[in-house]
Amino acid sequence: MSAAMPFTGFPIDRAGLKRREAEWIAGRLADPGSDLILLQAGQPVLEMQAAADGSRALLRLSASALGALPDGVPTVFLGLEGDGRAVFAASLPRRFDLETSPLAGLGEPAEMRAAAAGILVGGELALAATAKDLFDWHERHGFCARCGAASEIAEAGWKRVCPSCGAEHFPRTDPVAIMLPVRGDQCFLARNAQRFPRGFVSALAGFIEPGETVEEACAREVMEEAGLRVLSSRIVSNQPWPFPSQLMIGLLAEVAEGDAVLDLDELAEGFWFTRDEARALLSPQGLSFDGVTWRAPPPLAIAHHLITAWIDAQT
Amino acid sequence: MSAAMPFTGFPIDRAGLKRREAEWIAGRLADPGSDLILLQAGQPVLEMQAAADGSRALLRLSASALGALPDGVPTVFLGLEGDGRAVFAASLPRRFDLETSPLAGLGEPAEMRAAAAGILVGGELALAATAKDLFDWHERHGFCARCGAASEIAEAGWKRVCPSCGAEHFPRTDPVAIMLPVRGDQCFLARNAQRFPRGFVSALAGFIEPGETVEEACAREVMEEAGLRVLSSRIVSNQPWPFPSQLMIGLLAEVAEGDAVLDLDELAEGFWFTRDEARALLSPQGLSFDGVTWRAPPPLAIAHHLITAWIDAQT
Repeated sequence: MSAAMPFTGFPIDRAGLKRREAEWIAGRLADPGSDLILLQAGQPVLEMQAAADGSRALLRLSASALGALPDGVPTVFLGLEGDGRAVFAASLPRRFDLETSPLAGLGEPAEMRAAAAGILVGGELALAATAKDLFDWHERHGFCARCGAASEIAEAGWKRVCPSCGAEHFPRTDPVAIMLPVRGDQCFLARNAQRFPRGFVSALAGFIEPGETVEEACAREVMEEAGLRVLSSRIVSNQPWPFPSQLMIGLLAEVAEGDAVLDLDELAEGFWFTRDEARALLSPQGLSFDGVTWRAPPPLAIAHHLITAWIDAQT
Repeated sequence: MSAAMPFTGFPIDRAGLKRREAEWIAGRLADPGSDLILLQAGQPVLEMQAAADGSRALLRLSASALGALPDGVPTVFLGLEGDGRAVFAASLPRRFDLETSPLAGLGEPAEMRAAAAGILVGGELALAATAKDLFDWHERHGFCARCGAASEIAEAGWKRVCPSCGAEHFPRTDPVAIMLPVRGDQCFLARNAQRFPRGFVSALAGFIEPGETVEEACAREVMEEAGLRVLSSRIVSNQPWPFPSQLMIGLLAEVAEGDAVLDLDELAEGFWFTRDEARALLSPQGLSFDGVTWRAPPPLAIAHHLITAWIDAQT
């Protein structure tokens, strides 16, 4: 699963125990032999040159490039390469103009979803997504939720501590259940009322709530959003999803007979598709009906892989 | 899985869409026909009387009992019974003395883990754990992490909003990978250096980090804590775990040949056990060696079910 699923396959040793060694971290950050990748407002900075297949690597600088960046840019320690090199990420301020900086011409920021669609691939994408998650979290958690004081980055970017009340805060990852309702030779896909234009359908999804198993969240969401009763479900895959910091847990959900009754605030319309139709939805041509050409999510998204898993399960 | 796993099997309709209807919620809370359960400092308040099997139910009061509680106790909406009755939970302040209140003699708080070991069973336990998760979250998140202002409870206890910057905050659930390393006819269990006395071993576990799949977190933790290389792993079960607000995702992890090398800050000692030995560890008698009688987690914990799943997979 990991090889084909975007955002998975983190390529280096996270070396989590090193995060607590503040002196060691400071030394690696000051070492020109350490690597530095850059993000700007959550967008990974890529090399200018593309490979023959159109893919592009993350711009890798020496950590000494930190000297060319504004003072106090947030940095996080991502881990160690096989040869012992430390890898850090720095988050450029939104207003920082890369093109008029000493780093001009070396790289450019790319929107993460666009980059994830075949430009930034494999472990490079996992590195960038992990850094994005951490910087997103720091940006939204500058204050202590327990006492309201400004909190501080600690443990090489993997923790925040409150100097006032002493509370420790750790990066947040929200588990989400994402599921494909299936019945006999058909699967159910729906168009999200807020996010999708006509012509695009996907699996159902929702946050796993306190006190729920993955399967309970799956059954609740399928009933809430589509009015379908789940008879049984099974987890088939999972994916870290940095928009922001989610862990998508994918299930196939066998549902009982009965018509779908949509929560129209969530879902604008929903349809049952056969395996052949689902295959067409995933193809570049799409599937035409109601005067529109319909498509389902690209391989970027776990929903694509859920649909594929269901198609393949029967063939 | 759900039936046997403690903290699962939430027994009522969460009716999540109703949470946003503030007027409806206020009406239900003022309705003596609505139910109220109580927690105090995270401990569920149980009926005084035990059933013949030793189990005890949550104390269920009419929502009118709120009049006997201090002004402004936090409440959350848990959902709707099949007959349409709304169910709320209220969190009693630590210093509130139930015994000298108008509710004296009706119920008493019980420590959650003790209650979960056969006293509070099935859906009652899931209700209490969900309420505990929400109250724990409110207690630790009184301030806006984005701007530091005091935030306010919204959506019947399922959200907090910041009156200053407008940020919305939702209950946090931390996904955790918990895994049993296995190799041939043996499984690996270890004693946690901080939490377990000699004589108690369990599975390995760790938080799933940003940018990781469940399987990647499993492999990383097994390497970090025990120095064992995971060849493959599969998710076999999951459990909400309210100490506090975790989602435990359980895996069996096939590991490569090679000796375990423990991170002694985490694990004090670890051992390989055959299926017969693992069965003994789970039994009331335990397994004696090194002059100590060793045991593994009780059915309360997903680790118990992981070990059982591994034992059963071969028989």
